[in-house]
Amino acid sequence: MAVEQQTIQEFLDTLSSKAPVPGGGGASALAGALGSALGQMVANLTIGKKRYQEVEEEIKLLLEQLEAIKGEFLRLAAKDEEVFAPLAACYRLPSQTSEEKAYKEQVMEENLLAATLVPIQVMEKAMEALKILKALGEKGSRMAVSDVGVGVQLVRTGLLGAVMNVYINTGSMKNREKAEELNHRAGRMVKEGSALADEIYDQVLKELTRQKG
Amino acid sequence: MAVEQQTIQEFLDTLSSKAPVPGGGGASALAGALGSALGQMVANLTIGKKRYQEVEEEIKLLLEQLEAIKGEFLRLAAKDEEVFAPLAACYRLPSQTSEEKAYKEQVMEENLLAATLVPIQVMEKAMEALKILKALGEKGSRMAVSDVGVGVQLVRTGLLGAVMNVYINTGSMKNREKAEELNHRAGRMVKEGSALADEIYDQVLKELTRQKG
Repeated sequence: MAVEQQTIQEFLDTLSSKAPVPGGGGASALAGALGSALGQMVANLTIGKKRYQEVEEEIKLLLEQLEAIKGEFLRLAAKDEEVFAPLAACYRLPSQTSEEKAYKEQVMEENLLAATLVPIQVMEKAMEALKILKALGEKGSRMAVSDVGVGVQLVRTGLLGAVMNVYINTGSMKNREKAEELNHRAGRMVKEGSALADEIYDQVLKELTRQKG
Repeated sequence: MAVEQQTIQEFLDTLSSKAPVPGGGGASALAGALGSALGQMVANLTIGKKRYQEVEEEIKLLLEQLEAIKGEFLRLAAKDEEVFAPLAACYRLPSQTSEEKAYKEQVMEENLLAATLVPIQVMEKAMEALKILKALGEKGSRMAVSDVGVGVQLVRTGLLGAVMNVYINTGSMKNREKAEELNHRAGRMVKEGSALADEIYDQVLKELTRQKG
């Protein structure tokens, strides 16, 4: 069943169980979707308000972009489950003869790459979502600025959760050049994304404690 | 409807909308529940394995504790919605006469305190969950160590998301002594919890890149 069609209880139950999926990969993608939804809430609380009329068109665009990103996160949560079974099956392939060994290695390599590209895409979507949350934190309704802060933490979890599955899979790849290239790409996103997330969150916290404290 | 009985799609839809609840508070509590569930997955993958027989009784206890904490996070997500309506209603109370003003101030103060105690409890549960995840990261199945890492990020989001609602509500409280006491309690949990989360996550990352990189 598609992730979004499950009740939260059902998802939590299978996540808690020893079933291999959903696991950290699916939970990371779901965190990204929750963070995107919070960004949409902020956009929806901004649109239609006189005070924010000047940025309304821009906010509408950000709302649309978040809708697409949220959908991508859910698609990737499902995809994360799909790539698991063929990869697990690879480990059970025979490797007695040299032909069997060569075949197993090739299929394994293909499946490891497929399993790495899913969390890489989760990370890319998280980077996009963070940039939108930054704009919403600057221009969106001040009433909802705390929701930007929570959204940022959720998307950051998507980023820092997904990178683990990148490292697990690239660690087993034979093509070290490709593996290092993917690790480098992921590492750069972690560095840039964490810094951006911290910057947005700290700004929100500053505003909250200044405004009201 | 209880949070956990909704489908993920339903929850994401209302979260995205301009409806005030669920918002950042409910999403923070849900992040805590997801992180606790991942901890349970790690425990379930450890129990029954010969290699971890020595710690099995301890892990079973951690599993039970996480089940209770996960339930508390869900209860607090619902509670977060419950305390919103009476607080919002307070702002609409009349404040013409001095009696009306005094009554409004008193009711407001009570409701602000109730609305602050929910995220404070979310933070307390997050602190408990982080300590359990630390133990699971040290003693649980090495196969599932990345799930500890993702779980930690989710629970950290519960902590850093919930604190925003503490500051928003204490910022409006008239009793500044009580407000500062609550802010201090929350600030200490943020500091200790973030440090603990970073420590566990970095340890997991180190193991993943050493093991396989």
